[in-house]
Amino acid sequence: MVDGCPPRLPLTTELIQRDLDRRRPGQSKLTTQRNEADRVEILSGVFEGQTLGSTITLLVRNADASPNAYEHLKDVYRPSHADFTTYAKFGIRNWQGGGRASARETVGRVGAGAIARLLLCSAANVQVLAWVRQIADIAADVDPEAITLDQVEAHPTRCPASDVAEAMAKAIEAARRDGNSLGGIVECVAKGVPAGLGEPVFDKLEADLAKAVLSIPATKGFEIGSGFGATTMTGRDHNDPFVPGTMGQPRTSSNRSGGVQGGISNGEDIVIRVAFKPTATIASTQDTVDNQNNPVALEAKGRHDPCVLPRAVPIVEAQVLLVLADHWLRQQATDVLPRNG
Amino acid sequence: MVDGCPPRLPLTTELIQRDLDRRRPGQSKLTTQRNEADRVEILSGVFEGQTLGSTITLLVRNADASPNAYEHLKDVYRPSHADFTTYAKFGIRNWQGGGRASARETVGRVGAGAIARLLLCSAANVQVLAWVRQIADIAADVDPEAITLDQVEAHPTRCPASDVAEAMAKAIEAARRDGNSLGGIVECVAKGVPAGLGEPVFDKLEADLAKAVLSIPATKGFEIGSGFGATTMTGRDHNDPFVPGTMGQPRTSSNRSGGVQGGISNGEDIVIRVAFKPTATIASTQDTVDNQNNPVALEAKGRHDPCVLPRAVPIVEAQVLLVLADHWLRQQATDVLPRNG
Amino acid sequence: MVDGCPPRLPLTTELIQRDLDRRRPGQSKLTTQRNEADRVEILSGVFEGQTLGSTITLLVRNADASPNAYEHLKDVYRPSHADFTTYAKFGIRNWQGGGRASARETVGRVGAGAIARLLLCSAANVQVLAWVRQIADIAADVDPEAITLDQVEAHPTRCPASDVAEAMAKAIEAARRDGNSLGGIVECVAKGVPAGLGEPVFDKLEADLAKAVLSIPATKGFEIGSGFGATTMTGRDHNDPFVPGTMGQPRTSSNRSGGVQGGISNGEDIVIRVAFKPTATIASTQDTVDNQNNPVALEAKGRHDPCVLPRAVPIVEAQVLLVLADHWLRQQATDVLPRNG
Amino acid sequence: MVDGCPPRLPLTTELIQRDLDRRRPGQSKLTTQRNEADRVEILSGVFEGQTLGSTITLLVRNADASPNAYEHLKDVYRPSHADFTTYAKFGIRNWQGGGRASARETVGRVGAGAIARLLLCSAANVQVLAWVRQIADIAADVDPEAITLDQVEAHPTRCPASDVAEAMAKAIEAARRDGNSLGGIVECVAKGVPAGLGEPVFDKLEADLAKAVLSIPATKGFEIGSGFGATTMTGRDHNDPFVPGTMGQPRTSSNRSGGVQGGISNGEDIVIRVAFKPTATIASTQDTVDNQNNPVALEAKGRHDPCVLPRAVPIVEAQVLLVLADHWLRQQATDVLPRNG
Repeated sequence: MVDGCPPRLPLTTELIQRDLDRRRPGQSKLTTQRNEADRVEILSGVFEGQTLGSTITLLVRNADASPNAYEHLKDVYRPSHADFTTYAKFGIRNWQGGGRASARETVGRVGAGAIARLLLCSAANVQVLAWVRQIADIAADVDPEAITLDQVEAHPTRCPASDVAEAMAKAIEAARRDGNSLGGIVECVAKGVPAGLGEPVFDKLEADLAKAVLSIPATKGFEIGSGFGATTMTGRDHNDPFVPGTMGQPRTSSNRSGGVQGGISNGEDIVIRVAFKPTATIASTQDTVDNQNNPVALEAKGRHDPCVLPRAVPIVEAQVLLVLADHWLRQQATDVLPRNG
Repeated sequence: MVDGCPPRLPLTTELIQRDLDRRRPGQSKLTTQRNEADRVEILSGVFEGQTLGSTITLLVRNADASPNAYEHLKDVYRPSHADFTTYAKFGIRNWQGGGRASARETVGRVGAGAIARLLLCSAANVQVLAWVRQIADIAADVDPEAITLDQVEAHPTRCPASDVAEAMAKAIEAARRDGNSLGGIVECVAKGVPAGLGEPVFDKLEADLAKAVLSIPATKGFEIGSGFGATTMTGRDHNDPFVPGTMGQPRTSSNRSGGVQGGISNGEDIVIRVAFKPTATIASTQDTVDNQNNPVALEAKGRHDPCVLPRAVPIVEAQVLLVLADHWLRQQATDVLPRNG
Repeated sequence: MVDGCPPRLPLTTELIQRDLDRRRPGQSKLTTQRNEADRVEILSGVFEGQTLGSTITLLVRNADASPNAYEHLKDVYRPSHADFTTYAKFGIRNWQGGGRASARETVGRVGAGAIARLLLCSAANVQVLAWVRQIADIAADVDPEAITLDQVEAHPTRCPASDVAEAMAKAIEAARRDGNSLGGIVECVAKGVPAGLGEPVFDKLEADLAKAVLSIPATKGFEIGSGFGATTMTGRDHNDPFVPGTMGQPRTSSNRSGGVQGGISNGEDIVIRVAFKPTATIASTQDTVDNQNNPVALEAKGRHDPCVLPRAVPIVEAQVLLVLADHWLRQQATDVLPRNG
Repeated sequence: MVDGCPPRLPLTTELIQRDLDRRRPGQSKLTTQRNEADRVEILSGVFEGQTLGSTITLLVRNADASPNAYEHLKDVYRPSHADFTTYAKFGIRNWQGGGRASARETVGRVGAGAIARLLLCSAANVQVLAWVRQIADIAADVDPEAITLDQVEAHPTRCPASDVAEAMAKAIEAARRDGNSLGGIVECVAKGVPAGLGEPVFDKLEADLAKAVLSIPATKGFEIGSGFGATTMTGRDHNDPFVPGTMGQPRTSSNRSGGVQGGISNGEDIVIRVAFKPTATIASTQDTVDNQNNPVALEAKGRHDPCVLPRAVPIVEAQVLLVLADHWLRQQATDVLPRNG
């Protein structure tokens, strides 16, 4: 359910489906072999092709769920999954497929992100694009300013550097054959974000971006601009000099700030990176305990992604889009009085 | 102002002052030479030494402010500061000292964090401790499980590895003499956090932690547990095996999860790391523009920290404490029915 | 969708259906002749008959909707409906049945209220019961302390005073025959509410109750305890004297406070009254304008309730239940430290 | 503290003081004889006479507090006060003057309301005015459309009907001499509110208004437009016919809706009424219990208002202003796309 979407946006299921299709299982041999069409229905909030300004409800039904496939996991805590923590928190857990902790819930994020994309694109000409920058130790050097959606979608890894992409695909295949899994880094750029989005203290733009992407399953870290690389630089080298811009507004001649200064966008590209751990579900036997605190050996079963990175790309975009849309709307309720000059 | 603090906690100004003193300027030659006693007054919410359950208001007055020292910055945008973005957002800006974007506002976070610390310690026996792990390229290898507050406070850098700490201090001094500045990494551990804090989707514990620390000025990145290092591991090596624990509850034999699985604490130590950029204020001339979009050379003036890391330690602790206190309180309103067995 | 419901509550569709059946159209000849079974499905949040602690999603589909019946209203603003204001706000409107402003949305409130009722009853032994106190100028004098659900449900008007109920039914029938409509007053009592729910300033219990019931369509007023009647009393007559109670806790010998003092419950019955205007949809021709600002005569068509009061009873209960459940949960996160004595 | 105020409003202490002076104690012989100048300081959020867009902090210090005057109330629960409920909720209570439940906290509401008034007046030409409509059984018949601030302020009762005002003043004086107190009704109109403010379901404008005014101490009821009077009307008589307006937008030829239809403003005057109970503090001996559950006789002492209505007028205005300002700002973030035509 999406609240707060302005009225009179031309919203269609096709537009949402386009992003869902980039996330759905079974789209290439690199991802899980579970097959979900992930067809979206709009239940409310749209009338004759336009948003109404009221709550938009999207429904995507599971088509290829197989609850029985989880029977052997009923009493066992899978390592580095949320089985134990869910039980610890709630004292009850739906063991038939991951429950609320299943990455399946990201379908809702991508659907909502598509609506945010439509708003930002229509109203503010903002573009958000993510790609796979690194899988295991195979890294691509990508220029965030030059990259296009076609380049990202050209390869099932969603790494726009074609030579590196092929090496990544081979590594994923090897991990699958080995019953193992890989992690990596997704990078994301937002272009055209106007200066002035964000808040000076409590809802800094980079803080909201960090929260948004760290709420994606399997994430372990977040960087903006220079990120952890900033820690070994000096201030003289790290500061972004201002230079006169063409629109009467300053630009920076470098972008180590990553498009945000003091919690507020400065009009440059916003660039972030997100660390994903290797998938916790692996096709290997693992040591764990059951819910009676007894040690057990967990046999590998079922279908999974040996590497979630390619499918994580539209999810990262969605989270960034949602944060930017929220802050863009907030700014409409902030900058309400005429400016001098 | 702190809302939501439970009633009947024994709160004193001394307890708050203890944390404020670790953050205040002028506490060692490594930090800014501006001198602020940062004396706290409690204006509301405490009666006869106990919290009332209503809003707690803390007041810390500026004692050593010098608005005139900023006169030359009135029309100039300092590089990698929030001067331009504040103006872009609001169309007005208080140029006398950084305004709302001044790191001075972190005094409120540390004060509030002290209250959260008292709550967590009294009610749940949770301990939170941070330290400087890295300055520039000088890194300390610290065991989060073994570290103590005394070790952290033994050296003005707040790096508990004494040999490394001395090298850090020298590097900071050298940067100061050179009119330059340094960045680094603060690491933080939370011990004794009960399993079950956090939420499965929208307010994951790691997501809230990321937002909290990324709202500290000068931060550029966040990691939990294995962090960015996870990206080059395989699932077989990265997963944390469960083993039977002594309290009828499983433990993990490694902690690459960093104490959180699927957004919810698992009872192990929560371990995070925060990247700080080098201080934007440096004692060197820099190229920038003024508010008429003209290039100008900004002369260096005023007092500043050549490295904020030592003073950032209690700020990181405060942000972590506030997140944990909020989630601990939320859990009191979740786990309200008797558990079977 | 219901967030924040604690885990391990025994929730069934039957339990929810019971309240929905009291609200549904077509349950007696006094209400609209539109027939909706209003069958509820639980889509999420419940597993093997117990709540999971995650979002509970209820789905009730329209069965007897007839969008074409609204074709003649496409360009016309019905008097005292939300047609014009919806258009004024959003610049677009779904004219096929009232859209977001349709009283049909109260089905969600009643469903959510049934969950709140289960929680309050299980965990705190709180009972909430409403009834029709007045229709047009026919008023029943009812003792909130003595009333039972059976008495309320004994008559289709939901007025527990049987003689008055019959007069009300006749007045409703007469209004229907006349193409007219009637308003009235619903009264509601909450018994067993523990002392201490509510907040001293910003979310006073009576303020949240007022907001909750004023968000029900067709409401025009709210009273608690003595209500508007208090305005003509003196303080000496209005104050509720405290007397020693049997549980070591004071009681009041009168209840003009209506169970709330200073925004917080005092343990006495909470008693409120809600004013409903006569239904805006009437079977008579009315003067109005179209969306081109031209005067038009609106012909009467379609199915409607000549008096919403009988069906409003479970809606008022639901809104009161939701407010009390929220405050009861908040109090669990407030009163977390041991009390002296 | 006021968050969310837009930047670049010309805000002065004088402007705030003007409203505070209408609320302050001791302004006439009709109110409490306690004397508080209630001088306001602006601590943050304003720079060189303009709002900065960041949090505005107002400080008003108690000048004439006398904590010792409450010594005899330390262990006693005053009837119809919040002494007992505060203790029941928090297990602790500041007995020196009412604590958080003191009506003294309304000084903050009036201060914040003055800022909301400035915003609404500058940006939307909205005017909000309240007056005393009734004290005890003495009622004035006032035309909300015609009333002016000067008429309201002409008499210390703030009843604009001069003959009735004098009778009210005499009744208040008589109550004071008798050690008793009186209640009444405040009426409030908001003029110039554009059509389209409010929300269709969860934050209906009348619901937010009801919550806002019911959070004022001593309130027992709320009405909008026809209010409880609607309950005895028929739909045919109650509906407000639309007629063509001069601005291409419909008007209504009557205003029983009170300016709100379906939760959203329709451009007509918003008219509400608020019921106040007689002041709970009276100069008469009363029966009550102490905190050991023993019956005691409470002797009358101290200074109080025999009737709070005259001072409640600016408080009601403030609450209405804050609700309207919030909804006006929300609408700026809703109506963001160009309208057809």
